[in-house]
Amino acid sequence: MQFLSTGEPDFEKRFARIVNDRRESDKDVAGVVQSILARVKAEGDAALAELTRRYDGFDPQVDGWQIGRDVCEAAFHDLDPVLRAALETAAQRIRAYHEAQLPENRDYTDAAGVRLGARWGAVEAAGLYVPGGRAAYPSSLLMNAIPAKVAGVDRLVVTTPTPKGEVNPLVLAAAHLAGVDEIWRVGGAQAVAALAYGTDMIAPVDVITGPGNAFVAEAKRQLYGVVGIDMVAGPSEILVISDAKSDPDWIAADLLSQAEHDPSSQSILITDDMGFARLVEDAVDVMCAGLPTNRTARASWDDHGVIIVVDDLLAEAPALANRLAAEHVELAVDDPEPLFATIRHAGSVFLGRHTPEAVGDYVAGPNHVLPTGRRARFSSGLSVLDFMKRTSFIALDEAALRAIGPAAVALADAEGLPAHAKSVQVRL
Amino acid sequence: MQFLSTGEPDFEKRFARIVNDRRESDKDVAGVVQSILARVKAEGDAALAELTRRYDGFDPQVDGWQIGRDVCEAAFHDLDPVLRAALETAAQRIRAYHEAQLPENRDYTDAAGVRLGARWGAVEAAGLYVPGGRAAYPSSLLMNAIPAKVAGVDRLVVTTPTPKGEVNPLVLAAAHLAGVDEIWRVGGAQAVAALAYGTDMIAPVDVITGPGNAFVAEAKRQLYGVVGIDMVAGPSEILVISDAKSDPDWIAADLLSQAEHDPSSQSILITDDMGFARLVEDAVDVMCAGLPTNRTARASWDDHGVIIVVDDLLAEAPALANRLAAEHVELAVDDPEPLFATIRHAGSVFLGRHTPEAVGDYVAGPNHVLPTGRRARFSSGLSVLDFMKRTSFIALDEAALRAIGPAAVALADAEGLPAHAKSVQVRL
Repeated sequence: MQFLSTGEPDFEKRFARIVNDRRESDKDVAGVVQSILARVKAEGDAALAELTRRYDGFDPQVDGWQIGRDVCEAAFHDLDPVLRAALETAAQRIRAYHEAQLPENRDYTDAAGVRLGARWGAVEAAGLYVPGGRAAYPSSLLMNAIPAKVAGVDRLVVTTPTPKGEVNPLVLAAAHLAGVDEIWRVGGAQAVAALAYGTDMIAPVDVITGPGNAFVAEAKRQLYGVVGIDMVAGPSEILVISDAKSDPDWIAADLLSQAEHDPSSQSILITDDMGFARLVEDAVDVMCAGLPTNRTARASWDDHGVIIVVDDLLAEAPALANRLAAEHVELAVDDPEPLFATIRHAGSVFLGRHTPEAVGDYVAGPNHVLPTGRRARFSSGLSVLDFMKRTSFIALDEAALRAIGPAAVALADAEGLPAHAKSVQVRL
Repeated sequence: MQFLSTGEPDFEKRFARIVNDRRESDKDVAGVVQSILARVKAEGDAALAELTRRYDGFDPQVDGWQIGRDVCEAAFHDLDPVLRAALETAAQRIRAYHEAQLPENRDYTDAAGVRLGARWGAVEAAGLYVPGGRAAYPSSLLMNAIPAKVAGVDRLVVTTPTPKGEVNPLVLAAAHLAGVDEIWRVGGAQAVAALAYGTDMIAPVDVITGPGNAFVAEAKRQLYGVVGIDMVAGPSEILVISDAKSDPDWIAADLLSQAEHDPSSQSILITDDMGFARLVEDAVDVMCAGLPTNRTARASWDDHGVIIVVDDLLAEAPALANRLAAEHVELAVDDPEPLFATIRHAGSVFLGRHTPEAVGDYVAGPNHVLPTGRRARFSSGLSVLDFMKRTSFIALDEAALRAIGPAAVALADAEGLPAHAKSVQVRL
């Protein structure tokens, strides 16, 4: 953990290093992924089966390619009732938030008599990558699948590796609840390739979203343009801005909730009180030691944790927060509004002392798929818009064409495009 | 040009080949681009100067890196008055359409007492690539720059190669009109790298848009994630759906207006009348021969032009159009509404006989930067949203946390994330 104070002479240098530290995997996966994509494109299901046997120790040609909807439904009904109710609460709240996000069509006629507009529609098919093993979170399935369904996607396909045949019943239950149409037992770059190109068995999709390891992320990046994808995701991060009136245990828990995700996650605290900073530091140590996820959380906090002490929270924290452009920003103060008003770059903001980031991970409603690695400067959390596209339209009658057509002719001539000019002139 | 009829036995095979023909450049530019990006990242302005000397025959260190705003203003005032008025008409109409596109913020409190919302904001800086030479279109500059300015971008930077020092005064005039802040005399992948990484002289941007050659497109693709980019663009295309009542000359001009862009552009006509199809074919030949752009238009039409004759326009054309997912779709019929209602995948639709696609290129208002190569299945034309991002927010008080917190705890426990659970529990 690094301890910084804006009063120190080397603050800017150290802070800049934190901002520029990308915490990305260094693995050179591009070449491996490229050859996997080419193989699946050329050989289809045969390549998919072979790679699944090799990487997952699972033979889909023997043990089945798909998990049936009946299996998902059974997993849902077998859930502990408290957990099932929690999953239903989450799904209902996520659905409500994303339904309110649906964009409106436009259709109007302007003063020149030109009818203009834009019509939104869903993509036909979306593919959702669901990791296997410990990173298989039912909450992630809901956060990806529900916006797709709310957008109106016809066909929602999940691919998920089932190493040695193992499946996660919680994920299957979430798939039932979210209305997933197909689940294929394949993973890695080969699954992403199958979704993008299609195979004899798996029909291609238009958009691919969902978290995955470095190979999955690189496969999505390489297939961007063949299909739509959600933003390239890096390690998770939280920035907590807190004054000294917060309970140090509350803030420690928030910092650790991010740290326990992955050793490369990052938790940062900005506060205006040195004594409070030290109390939080101690609380993190105590609480962390008692966590079943101690090892991961400890590694993350030791390697990437940061505490920054400033003189004046309102005067200094927003500029630092905007440079960090963090995925999650908590404002643990009595009145978060002045801080919130000046924070320009953040994936999601959690206002006030009673809004731990974890409520956003599960049940608040907004999406928990958010831009990481400073990408909040230019990108947004997952939304229904990622599963939709907009078609603009234009309609002119003779009078409208007489009104605006001559300007088009002048510009087409100036650009040296005579057929453009002619297509207007012949109608005038 | 290919002539197809849905009645022929090999129609499906031939049509599928047209759908799957990507008309992309085969050049293997990825490796070259990768090394250019690495050089600019490591060596900054020195690499930029060296590459500009090599590729553009222009030495920015001797003849100047930038084109001043005064030069752009002078270019604007020196324009022929008719052309200047046309440019102003275009700018005003593009601005009006994109202003109406600005998204609304959301802020509400739901039944559980949870305050939820989303706040939109502009990126700080945007870079706009403007090609040099014959593909330098003032209309493209307006179509990229105006949405950025309407979105609220603070700093709008243009990079454009000026081979042997040559500049296009029309483009400079458009830059003045659109309020571009900086113009740098660099191009190619090296310019894109400078925009994304920044150099000593050029501050980095958050989003890069604008057309370019294969190297520029590949540079943007490789830098996706470091910055935001607009969709990967391929050759332009038009699909005209017309009945026999259209004037064949009008339709021929529309097909040629796309064909004259580039030899790899594609123009397709779907009609329900064989005689009309033949009339259009003849009209294209006659009109094309008289065009100054004959050579390009002829090559495009010969290599990629298609006429498809169907039995019933309304019954057959929409399914074909949706498979083509074309950038531009014209509906040249008396009542375009029934066709329009069933066309799901298109970049922009032009309704009725008096709406040639070229009005959309210049003055109608909607953006002319549109998805190509069947990407209308999942992506949209350029809009203010490409220069904005959304921050979601959540605020709970004690009562709201008591209402929804326990469900978050149940899910966090089930996912094996105890610090997530704890961050809620300590507050309950």
